[in-house]
Amino acid sequence: MDTIVVALGGNAILQKGEKGTAEDQRRNIQNTAAQLAGLIKEGYRLVITHGNGPQVGNILIQNEAGRGKVPEMPMDICGAQSQGMIGYMLQMCLRNALRKLGLDMPISTVITQALVDKNDPAFSHPTKPVGPFYSEEWAQERMERYGETWIEDAGRGWRRVVPSPEPKAIIETPSIKSLVDQGHIVICSGGGGIPVVESEDGSLAGVEAVIEKDLSAERLASSVKATSLIILTDVNGAALNYRGADETWLGEVTLSKLAEYYHESHFFEGSMRPKVKAIMRFIEHSGKIAVIAALDKAREAALGQTGTRILG
Amino acid sequence: MDTIVVALGGNAILQKGEKGTAEDQRRNIQNTAAQLAGLIKEGYRLVITHGNGPQVGNILIQNEAGRGKVPEMPMDICGAQSQGMIGYMLQMCLRNALRKLGLDMPISTVITQALVDKNDPAFSHPTKPVGPFYSEEWAQERMERYGETWIEDAGRGWRRVVPSPEPKAIIETPSIKSLVDQGHIVICSGGGGIPVVESEDGSLAGVEAVIEKDLSAERLASSVKATSLIILTDVNGAALNYRGADETWLGEVTLSKLAEYYHESHFFEGSMRPKVKAIMRFIEHSGKIAVIAALDKAREAALGQTGTRILG
Repeated sequence: MDTIVVALGGNAILQKGEKGTAEDQRRNIQNTAAQLAGLIKEGYRLVITHGNGPQVGNILIQNEAGRGKVPEMPMDICGAQSQGMIGYMLQMCLRNALRKLGLDMPISTVITQALVDKNDPAFSHPTKPVGPFYSEEWAQERMERYGETWIEDAGRGWRRVVPSPEPKAIIETPSIKSLVDQGHIVICSGGGGIPVVESEDGSLAGVEAVIEKDLSAERLASSVKATSLIILTDVNGAALNYRGADETWLGEVTLSKLAEYYHESHFFEGSMRPKVKAIMRFIEHSGKIAVIAALDKAREAALGQTGTRILG
Repeated sequence: MDTIVVALGGNAILQKGEKGTAEDQRRNIQNTAAQLAGLIKEGYRLVITHGNGPQVGNILIQNEAGRGKVPEMPMDICGAQSQGMIGYMLQMCLRNALRKLGLDMPISTVITQALVDKNDPAFSHPTKPVGPFYSEEWAQERMERYGETWIEDAGRGWRRVVPSPEPKAIIETPSIKSLVDQGHIVICSGGGGIPVVESEDGSLAGVEAVIEKDLSAERLASSVKATSLIILTDVNGAALNYRGADETWLGEVTLSKLAEYYHESHFFEGSMRPKVKAIMRFIEHSGKIAVIAALDKAREAALGQTGTRILG
């Protein structure tokens, strides 16, 4: 049976313009779960990972709003909270969707840490925006008081940026792999995993950073020896000259050709670029099918028939 | 190899008087992890469960403080967040503690739903206080606006109460059991599990309720066929006439004798009573050792040598 790692984009959980109520999230996750249940029905084994941007953003806002009443939690703990929240909704909705198809399979969410290198150059160049926009005064206070990095986004205000280091390994791989090997469905590595560093004595500690979830999805897919890595998002693949006059959508493409486009900087940082990097890496690590496709094309994506894809 | 379900009380994560900062929690969890690592070193397989009262209380406060900025989450989702938060800290600290002993074993946190009966009489009699005390105006508004139940605690203000239904089953048992069977350490069923009800078509839905974590710990221990259920708390067992003139601590006791004391109402609701109920049920479900003991006596408890205990 083929194992597929499915990386869900933000649109699988929340649509643009939605506020992020529990009802919003449940409705979207129910639709997503129906798609995923269809794949399972066809005989694929799934490992599901997902983004957590809006959810962890909301948790950060709640932490700030509650300051003075209850202690603020650092980002690693907020990330763990978001994994619990989204994982719970996904595992419940997927179980319900499978039941409708007459299927009953064990599903679980595994809280996941992703190992990063404490010497990753990203730590000296924070680039990943987190949370909402604030005033300059607020940003100045946070910079002075907590040593955080904030940048101004012309016209929109100030926003905190954190490092986005490379994921080296998924700490919980043994547990995830053993569940997958027994035919269980696993939800894990939410938000790219909780970033942790290893000190010289081998102990782990959380860090204030955000890992690109697609890069962690590749680590996960390669570690569990998945056949396919399918990155589902709100567009059906990557494009050259995206939104330009000569925009060209990419279908099946070779690794070397995609690498060429990648180095020509066709893909946006923090958006399509990490997705393209992830599918290239997966094929380099002997994956068979790597696809970036639209959420509602999950089935065709699994068959390698749609989206931007490399067949290894 | 013997499997032990260890149910950690609130004192394993937060001590009385502490505010609940990440540092407070990490320090306590590190001490707890050292205890648990000692048990693992002796050859026991552990399934670890824990309370979440102060953590979910803080998340509820943050939700209220952030109202108007971001949508409030219902209690089931807040519970899932707390499982992610506490599970993450426990799995990291336990890994670090094992490393110090030269051990390297897979550990994972599984987000856990606990099935309750939608006709459980508890739903018409909410009794379990959650979150902090508020003014009467606040309580009245919540009662009218959201249909919540609030009660006045003489002199301390108003507090929300939610139903505390009986846990029937741990939904993620297959995943937990298969990890345990492979010698992995599993953290699960935090806060008693996220309470869910099953509708007639077999689909699950979360409910606003709190399950006694010790009763869920029994369900867990019986389901994974553990040898022992050890409930660790801040006192070394149960007492007759607790804090009375003729207070008598219970050591090894028979099931029938403990049942007698239980029915004589020696143990406080929401505190020692569910713990006593849990250890009695575990022995009835063919458990071998069931103990209520102090956190720092985990080793003696595992050997059935301390605390209030029934040997089946």
